[in-house]
Amino acid sequence: MVNTERVFIGLLHSSLSEQVLIRGWIYRLRELAKTTFIILKDCSGEIQCVADPAYTRSLSLKLDEPVEIKGWVKPDLRSRSGFEIEVTDICVLNRVTHLLPFNSSSDISEIGIDTILAYRPLSLRNHSVGDIFRIQAAVLHYFRQFLWEKHFTEIVTSKIVSSETEGGTNLFEIKYFERSAYLAQSPQFYKEQGVAGLERVFETGHVYRAEPHASSRHLTEYYSLDLELGFIEQSEEVIQLEKELLTYIFEMLNENYAEIIKRYRTKLLPKMINVPIWEFEECLERLNQSYGRTDLVDDLDPEAERQLCQLAESETGISALFVIGFPLSARPFYTYPRGNNGASQSFDLLFEGVEITTGGQRLHKREDLEQALRLRAINPNMFESHLQMFDMGMPPHGGLAIGLERLTSRILNLPNIKQATLYPRDRYRISP
Amino acid sequence: MVNTERVFIGLLHSSLSEQVLIRGWIYRLRELAKTTFIILKDCSGEIQCVADPAYTRSLSLKLDEPVEIKGWVKPDLRSRSGFEIEVTDICVLNRVTHLLPFNSSSDISEIGIDTILAYRPLSLRNHSVGDIFRIQAAVLHYFRQFLWEKHFTEIVTSKIVSSETEGGTNLFEIKYFERSAYLAQSPQFYKEQGVAGLERVFETGHVYRAEPHASSRHLTEYYSLDLELGFIEQSEEVIQLEKELLTYIFEMLNENYAEIIKRYRTKLLPKMINVPIWEFEECLERLNQSYGRTDLVDDLDPEAERQLCQLAESETGISALFVIGFPLSARPFYTYPRGNNGASQSFDLLFEGVEITTGGQRLHKREDLEQALRLRAINPNMFESHLQMFDMGMPPHGGLAIGLERLTSRILNLPNIKQATLYPRDRYRISP
Repeated sequence: MVNTERVFIGLLHSSLSEQVLIRGWIYRLRELAKTTFIILKDCSGEIQCVADPAYTRSLSLKLDEPVEIKGWVKPDLRSRSGFEIEVTDICVLNRVTHLLPFNSSSDISEIGIDTILAYRPLSLRNHSVGDIFRIQAAVLHYFRQFLWEKHFTEIVTSKIVSSETEGGTNLFEIKYFERSAYLAQSPQFYKEQGVAGLERVFETGHVYRAEPHASSRHLTEYYSLDLELGFIEQSEEVIQLEKELLTYIFEMLNENYAEIIKRYRTKLLPKMINVPIWEFEECLERLNQSYGRTDLVDDLDPEAERQLCQLAESETGISALFVIGFPLSARPFYTYPRGNNGASQSFDLLFEGVEITTGGQRLHKREDLEQALRLRAINPNMFESHLQMFDMGMPPHGGLAIGLERLTSRILNLPNIKQATLYPRDRYRISP
Repeated sequence: MVNTERVFIGLLHSSLSEQVLIRGWIYRLRELAKTTFIILKDCSGEIQCVADPAYTRSLSLKLDEPVEIKGWVKPDLRSRSGFEIEVTDICVLNRVTHLLPFNSSSDISEIGIDTILAYRPLSLRNHSVGDIFRIQAAVLHYFRQFLWEKHFTEIVTSKIVSSETEGGTNLFEIKYFERSAYLAQSPQFYKEQGVAGLERVFETGHVYRAEPHASSRHLTEYYSLDLELGFIEQSEEVIQLEKELLTYIFEMLNENYAEIIKRYRTKLLPKMINVPIWEFEECLERLNQSYGRTDLVDDLDPEAERQLCQLAESETGISALFVIGFPLSARPFYTYPRGNNGASQSFDLLFEGVEITTGGQRLHKREDLEQALRLRAINPNMFESHLQMFDMGMPPHGGLAIGLERLTSRILNLPNIKQATLYPRDRYRISP
């Protein structure tokens, strides 16, 4: 019987000895005197196909061309799958007309990011790049899965806002009909409103920072995994939630993507539940003691983040730590104080040398917010529409944000954040 | 034993006869002579609490205040859950200081959208509004779940682009450092690149249309559920996928949210697998026959969409149909032709009177795209960076986009799309 429905390569095992129709890209091609070997690849897997070389030469097949192949599924003990396709027909669905700088089966570890981006479709087809984004998709999937099970509701909030949320001036301005609007730097205020309405919310979406950098750490547009929850008593509950969340995500990745993970890093991903929590002041002391650093005042710098991760690793075996108690003065106005010494309930998670999360408890009483604004010489009237939200039954709350590209690049040990961004945007780049 | 860890209300049944600590909002409050009844609500459920009225009066409790309650879980056969909380302590976590225009337990069906938005946290706490966004979150969840099982990879693409994709001039301009960039109208080109790399991709994200409307159907920023798949032969495969996708989403909603669905619509959601496919020309004939309409040429209007849904409903029992074969000239340049009579493989899904999807097969050969551009008097050189993507092994492909807010408002029979948008944006509105 001829099956004219396309079969996914990953499902061929149930069509043994049948005639099948498969479609995919030519991943490898060897035209020998007596046989042509084609490895065909689709989104479900790859399979060896054997064909008559006279026939394949007449088609002038090229690597990476999308083709449709008809043939018989024949047992073959030499192949990995235990069977191969004996080809009867090949139809080239589109020609590769361009001289390609690499192929989907090439080793592209030496190829620079600009070429990778200029040939994005082709680089994605190469497993060393494609797998980065398969892992990224899995991170998103497990992130949402975990929160879905824990009474969180996903929200979708606007990225077009009338004013700043985070302070600072790194806002992109939009021409919005007759007036100006801005691209949101964070869904912070919206997720706090979400808490006041739904208690536990999360959002996965773009945020924008008009930072005039083009470094290996910065993007002007990144994807933020945001969550916020009500009825907490202290920041440590948010930290505990993140530990459980990352433990879940990492366990799922270790379980389902071990082969990929091991290609990018020496060890599988760590158990994040065991990550220690260090006070900011304690971090400064340790940095002084171990590295003689006396230059840090109210924040950490990239070097300090790396050094702290090294210290944590030597103590716990995991290159990660939560830093809590950053100076209140260096954090946004809505940050909750930690004690009376100018520390805050704001925390960062440093993972393998890089900050991947900022979170904390937020102020939930209008009078405290007004005072915090006044302390920063901001007239609370400027924030009146925001402050009103705190008159409607806002519970104590906190939350966090994880940068997806940073997390992906740490998971896969990628030196440049742009490697974990399909279409990166920086100071100079707005295409492809 | 005193349990000092907060227990979710939905899990109280496993703490029968124990002392517990719960947190939530005062949903209902009745202070009688001998007893005060409080219905407390958190993200997991609600529970009746009974307290000493002298004590509760001394606290001046108000509806919608967030509180912490300690008490005993006592069996009570009169209550729905079979038990209630005998209160020992109440701590008010934040005061409601503002005179609220409604409460979370009010009937707010008569309250206008402007008040709903101005009091977004409070309106979200009211189940009639909160449930809209719980359904929306569930739609997102099941959409991704279905595609995750079908070899689709989620992608995250940039919303800052250097030029238009869909044609037309409804672009928002961004001041991007020294130059101009634009907010993406659609991830179309990016998802086509995704197909060329990963074969099957989806994205859920915002898209932007600078349409100078403020109607009940339009938003300048909406959330698009996009998917695209390679190696198809015709648009009907995309339609079949959407039928299966929506059938899955609707079945899951009927199964897990029946009570909510039934509050908003008379019947549960239909089996979308049975939705018919009508040719565009056939639609015009039917509209002429049944409604005497002769004014439509190359597109449908809102009235025609409603009329066609009525016709479909009278034939199939479902108020929905796919319209395929829209005139090529009225669709974007990358649209695949359907036969040789000027029709295209572009389709719409009309559901309960409104278009909720546009999709179709796309051109996949460079020469066809160049010709299509030339036919529209556009110099292909303008699109060279895009056209290059078709030289790298682009398979035949197609896809679709569903507007999340439109879908949500159809599912819940909401007259205004803003009711299904947490923070709607239109010609005049950029806050909250």
